[in-house]
Amino acid sequence: MGRWEPDARGRLAEAALELYSERGYEQTTVAEIAGRAGLTERTFFRHYADKREVLFSGSAELRESFVRAVADAPESAAPMDALAAGLDAMSEMFAGRREFARERQAVITANAELKERELIKLASIAASLTDALRGRGVAEPGASLLAEVGVAVFKVGFERWIAAGEKRQLAQVMRESLTELKAMTGGG
Amino acid sequence: MGRWEPDARGRLAEAALELYSERGYEQTTVAEIAGRAGLTERTFFRHYADKREVLFSGSAELRESFVRAVADAPESAAPMDALAAGLDAMSEMFAGRREFARERQAVITANAELKERELIKLASIAASLTDALRGRGVAEPGASLLAEVGVAVFKVGFERWIAAGEKRQLAQVMRESLTELKAMTGGG
Repeated sequence: MGRWEPDARGRLAEAALELYSERGYEQTTVAEIAGRAGLTERTFFRHYADKREVLFSGSAELRESFVRAVADAPESAAPMDALAAGLDAMSEMFAGRREFARERQAVITANAELKERELIKLASIAASLTDALRGRGVAEPGASLLAEVGVAVFKVGFERWIAAGEKRQLAQVMRESLTELKAMTGGG
Repeated sequence: MGRWEPDARGRLAEAALELYSERGYEQTTVAEIAGRAGLTERTFFRHYADKREVLFSGSAELRESFVRAVADAPESAAPMDALAAGLDAMSEMFAGRREFARERQAVITANAELKERELIKLASIAASLTDALRGRGVAEPGASLLAEVGVAVFKVGFERWIAAGEKRQLAQVMRESLTELKAMTGGG
């Protein structure tokens, strides 16, 4: 199985993102990614199924941290507060990763196939979140609606967080988005 | 150009949906759709670019009716009320089409490629809606968030409307979803 490579996974991800940014996602090969990271193709395939997975390998973990925090919120918490706990938990996963997230987003925005994959990822988070809210006893259509709202706040908050010059932490940006949303929807 | 075919477009859409339901979307050819409708392939291609377009030909019109109603709401209307006007306008487009919508949704749910296309359609509606809300003077992140909420209410309301046994009109189902959402988000 070859010698042990310290943080091969992380080095491959960084090399991939560099290459996708420099020459485009379509134009980059796995051989080039491995080469840039100073590793073999074989090592690449021990960590990722293909070059797309480098960009989406964190999706499942992201969904699980969101869902678990919603499910584990105190029984007395209102659905919106459970949702806020989920957004906080997700935010923590991005600590120190703003630059990586920024570059990743630029690569995704430039490629139709990757944009579709990103939409599927978000839809999958919404579906899991709906289940978690139902598990808390939130009735339909409330559970589905609130899950979609949660994903919307994540999506819009995330875009703001990676905007040029933005200095606030992700959790703060998301809480502000949530407050903004409450003000707009609660007024009527 | 051949003889004039009364409502060839509608007949082709019905024939396509029947076939997609009976034998699956993948397994159906344009020749079979045209044959079932008693028309030629040439006539099919005068109306639709391919067999997928039969399922999505109304997307642009749907988006425009939603966006136009939001943009045309009275200047004094709160953003949420403009959004509600948009949902009402969209609902009108589905009057008398519940059975068609039900069958269409079953075909889409059964096919990964079509599900992706549906997600792209919804994302495109959200983007146009964001522009319309900004045009009304709604600042960011409010415009983006509210646009996502509008699409969520549409999506969830639509799913309820086509559920087995559901008798209420789409506009009513959506208004109830909106009210439910306000109650959940406004409380915090």
